[in-house]
Amino acid sequence: MSTHTIDARLAELRIVLPDPPASAGAYRPVVCRGHLGFVSGQFPFRQGALAYTGRVGVEITPEQGRESAAIAALNALAQIRAALNGWQRFRGLCRLEGHVASGADFLKQPAVLDGASELFERALGSELGAHARTAFHASRLPLDAPVELVVTFSFAKS
Amino acid sequence: MSTHTIDARLAELRIVLPDPPASAGAYRPVVCRGHLGFVSGQFPFRQGALAYTGRVGVEITPEQGRESAAIAALNALAQIRAALNGWQRFRGLCRLEGHVASGADFLKQPAVLDGASELFERALGSELGAHARTAFHASRLPLDAPVELVVTFSFAKS
Amino acid sequence: MSTHTIDARLAELRIVLPDPPASAGAYRPVVCRGHLGFVSGQFPFRQGALAYTGRVGVEITPEQGRESAAIAALNALAQIRAALNGWQRFRGLCRLEGHVASGADFLKQPAVLDGASELFERALGSELGAHARTAFHASRLPLDAPVELVVTFSFAKS
Repeated sequence: MSTHTIDARLAELRIVLPDPPASAGAYRPVVCRGHLGFVSGQFPFRQGALAYTGRVGVEITPEQGRESAAIAALNALAQIRAALNGWQRFRGLCRLEGHVASGADFLKQPAVLDGASELFERALGSELGAHARTAFHASRLPLDAPVELVVTFSFAKS
Repeated sequence: MSTHTIDARLAELRIVLPDPPASAGAYRPVVCRGHLGFVSGQFPFRQGALAYTGRVGVEITPEQGRESAAIAALNALAQIRAALNGWQRFRGLCRLEGHVASGADFLKQPAVLDGASELFERALGSELGAHARTAFHASRLPLDAPVELVVTFSFAKS
Repeated sequence: MSTHTIDARLAELRIVLPDPPASAGAYRPVVCRGHLGFVSGQFPFRQGALAYTGRVGVEITPEQGRESAAIAALNALAQIRAALNGWQRFRGLCRLEGHVASGADFLKQPAVLDGASELFERALGSELGAHARTAFHASRLPLDAPVELVVTFSFAKS
């Protein structure tokens, strides 16, 4: 899939990218250096509030965790699009690091994070959306969020 | 050490790389972009099953944790070798991020992760095997694994 | 701000960089590959000992956590300066990953990490000091440290 068609693809999938969330402190939402873009930790914010809070397996279900991962992934896409001012210079995802706030006995973080990975592949296609992934069990996350995603991507300078 | 001789060195050390583990979800085991390779989180899988499960200092000993780190490191090497189709284009490790599932009072994660770091240096030599490292205490890890390793490496395009 | 003036700026701010801490195992404090520098996990060491230990919200206060983050940030700057033998080839921070050892109910990790982010911006200026950030709640950290920082930066080969 060409980068030119990502917005068309999003429209076809009826995926509306939100406004990219502002940073929560003295840092930038995205920093681009060389050919790599570093997206700050993304949470499942929807219209300014966390869509869910709490831990998977305790306060929320795995399915709600999975939905949280997808919402955070949308925010990551919105950040990338804003940082590159469109998709033309986008060259693909690199790594998705996914932290899932989990009850002590909930160990299926990979299934929760598939909510993000599948959204990336649907939105970006199998080549540009391809990413390495690392899944973590967190006992808690900042803001009591259920999921935090850390995305690194590749871009061309012009 | 030349990259051409890594397989010879592995053979001499009687290190047999396993088949690289398949991904556990909708992501790739390794993604290469620009000059960086991103390896998905590696666990101490041996012949398709985790060699150990549980937390260091609770269900398993520090020495078993160290062995787990070495096994996960072997899997990371297998992933890199498969992604680059050999070692010719390999230009060195960058970062090893090591997460150790630990009892609340076990705080010697660096000693556990030396099991991975020392294997990397033995296998790859002191220049190509050199890596920055970050050690973390995890209360649990996905799949109840004792160790999860996240490796980033450098490669040449041709 | 030009890279040539970072040392002057540090002097003006009366910021004295410490000696960069040695690595705690079989790894390097910093690895530079391509155009990226990877700094190993930095802790709030001051003159060879941790300035604080324990969890924010339990053994130490948020303000002490914030000071710990600033001390660890100084160590990260010292590592970068030593690895590049000065600031001339430094091209800016990329990502700051901040892990805060926290009581179960302490969820304001971003405020703690601002201690590091603000120091980076004061020391390096708003362009070279700009960084993406990810904040994590850790139940414990290695060595019982309250904060662990993981920094990635960009540099020019000559």
